[in-house]
Amino acid sequence: MSDVGDMSDMGDRVFNFSAGPATLPEPVLRQAQRDVFNIADSGIGIMEHSHRGKVFERITEETEALCREIGNIPDNYRVFWMQGGATSQCYMVPANFLGEGQTADYFDTGKWAGDSIREVPLYGNLHICGSSAATNHDRILGPADASYSPAPVYVQYTSNNTIVGTEWHDEPANIPAGSFLVCDASSNIFSRPIDVNKYGMIYAGAQKNLGPSGITLLIARDDVLELSPRKLPEMMHYKNHAKWVGRFNTPNTFGVYLMGEVFKWILAEGGLTAMAEKNAAKSDVVYAFLDSQDFYTPHAQKASRSRMNLTFRCPTPELDAEFTRQADKKGLSGLTGHRITKGMRASMYNAFPIEGAHALVDFMKSFALEHAAAAKA
Amino acid sequence: MSDVGDMSDMGDRVFNFSAGPATLPEPVLRQAQRDVFNIADSGIGIMEHSHRGKVFERITEETEALCREIGNIPDNYRVFWMQGGATSQCYMVPANFLGEGQTADYFDTGKWAGDSIREVPLYGNLHICGSSAATNHDRILGPADASYSPAPVYVQYTSNNTIVGTEWHDEPANIPAGSFLVCDASSNIFSRPIDVNKYGMIYAGAQKNLGPSGITLLIARDDVLELSPRKLPEMMHYKNHAKWVGRFNTPNTFGVYLMGEVFKWILAEGGLTAMAEKNAAKSDVVYAFLDSQDFYTPHAQKASRSRMNLTFRCPTPELDAEFTRQADKKGLSGLTGHRITKGMRASMYNAFPIEGAHALVDFMKSFALEHAAAAKA
Repeated sequence: MSDVGDMSDMGDRVFNFSAGPATLPEPVLRQAQRDVFNIADSGIGIMEHSHRGKVFERITEETEALCREIGNIPDNYRVFWMQGGATSQCYMVPANFLGEGQTADYFDTGKWAGDSIREVPLYGNLHICGSSAATNHDRILGPADASYSPAPVYVQYTSNNTIVGTEWHDEPANIPAGSFLVCDASSNIFSRPIDVNKYGMIYAGAQKNLGPSGITLLIARDDVLELSPRKLPEMMHYKNHAKWVGRFNTPNTFGVYLMGEVFKWILAEGGLTAMAEKNAAKSDVVYAFLDSQDFYTPHAQKASRSRMNLTFRCPTPELDAEFTRQADKKGLSGLTGHRITKGMRASMYNAFPIEGAHALVDFMKSFALEHAAAAKA
Repeated sequence: MSDVGDMSDMGDRVFNFSAGPATLPEPVLRQAQRDVFNIADSGIGIMEHSHRGKVFERITEETEALCREIGNIPDNYRVFWMQGGATSQCYMVPANFLGEGQTADYFDTGKWAGDSIREVPLYGNLHICGSSAATNHDRILGPADASYSPAPVYVQYTSNNTIVGTEWHDEPANIPAGSFLVCDASSNIFSRPIDVNKYGMIYAGAQKNLGPSGITLLIARDDVLELSPRKLPEMMHYKNHAKWVGRFNTPNTFGVYLMGEVFKWILAEGGLTAMAEKNAAKSDVVYAFLDSQDFYTPHAQKASRSRMNLTFRCPTPELDAEFTRQADKKGLSGLTGHRITKGMRASMYNAFPIEGAHALVDFMKSFALEHAAAAKA
């Protein structure tokens, strides 16, 4: 297919620190520009193809295969996608896995964990096996913090906490025998190598590391998909979506397509090992600066810091507001912290360029210099 | 924003008769090509903007306002969107509206109606108030076919039946006082003027007349949103999604954006009156030919014919297969009928051009000429 023209005439792109939806790889966006009008010389744009037709069938197969390759996903796991965001999984997980009278263990490490926890009592018994609430969720929970119930069906945790900027660097340890691990990996999936064998199910809203919003990736072990503790509407059964690889009903076809393009980009960049190196390098640029000064205060404890979402604040809320206002004018967009944590949040997922991390530090330095005297006055 | 280049170099587009996802207006696709890279000179593509940020907030407000203008939607109705397709509404409707021990009436006019009907007993009592099953769903149901229960909470129907190619030309008549009408309008919404006042709720998967797949439009009266017959997960409450105009959690932001662009196109074309005229003209081209010959057999009864999905078959299944094969080669794509009805289906939604209807008839004529003798032999 021929070119759509020089994209330099599309205006300058800025450094987009949005927590999600977030920066996508530019080669993916350029490919999408072509494919929305006419994909694979079919004479039909990607959004206009039947989800049962040959072109989209190939995209489904290819996206699944790429996902398996990137994540080194074993054969006894299904790969599929759903709609409704990770937030829908808050109720889908207990509805599908937790029978009445049974118990599930949840780690409480922030708002998204809390949203999941809220729905459990509708379906079974809830046990909080660890919580960081006492210190405003400024840390993840180590082995010493975990206190499991005797026989939970599963243990759920949120591997990266977008709002507070904390991240689990390892899976929760020593979960009770017979239980399986469920992970909301929305904000750090495929940002580093992952051992899928440690999980019963992993799910992730796409809009941080995988693609656009409106599509959720699920990776689930065959045996957990067979759990069926209650009668559910057909659309609520994981096994229906797994069996049809996301095409039980009409999926977000554009979302599946774009996730496939992002997967191609991840592979071309060197896979998850390369992603991990680049993400470490990017966050190191900012954390090294944060640790070298005393104008900005980081939110997360050092050992629990997220490589995806970096949270910090100025000496005063007024300076926080001034910081994001000035940053925005300099092409550093989306730095306002979540309304819960306030201050600033710099989200730097897979597709975010390291040049943006350097630009942020340069700006932080000059802003601190300009306002340090006033802040102390 | 500057141009992305001459799209004629993107290869020829074909006539796409897909039942959904389906043909989108070319001006909308061309706009999307620009906006995926950089929308509104923000330096950020439409998929990369936070759903809580100013750019997407404006898109949300604009898309709602356009929807209200096109559909002449009264102030006591909420306009919002969800994910999961119309199929998710099969259980969301009874979960939100139907208390245990209460009854809902459903018209059974085909597979999609059947999918809705299947989920009702999970929540309350089901009454089938009319069915076309006896004649393979070849017709819609008139006032004489309706037999309502004494006091249903609501009456549900599917206004256009994509698979069989039938369409209600008026709303079901004389529903019991105190009940409200719920309509799955996925495949004919905004194809003609609609009197929203007649409904408690209208919902429609976007992928036929409104945009890409992965987003469902909902239009609901304030009072029905207050019904709360049971405790539900937060994501299952209509009122949460309505209150946040689709942003209770992260929506399919690209889907909302594209729906807004389709709305702009509908308005520019002259609104729903113009859509109705064009859709009538397109389907008349094909139906007039079908009524003038005896090689092809239409599936739907004449009075129940859909303007959106036109179903017919050749004298033999072998000729059906040959028909779609040859048509595809001539740039008439997606004419294979659904596996339930078989034969052929020509879907011609709002964005489908009348030139495609003429091209289809030309092909039907030549194919019939070529094969009439063989079929009779």
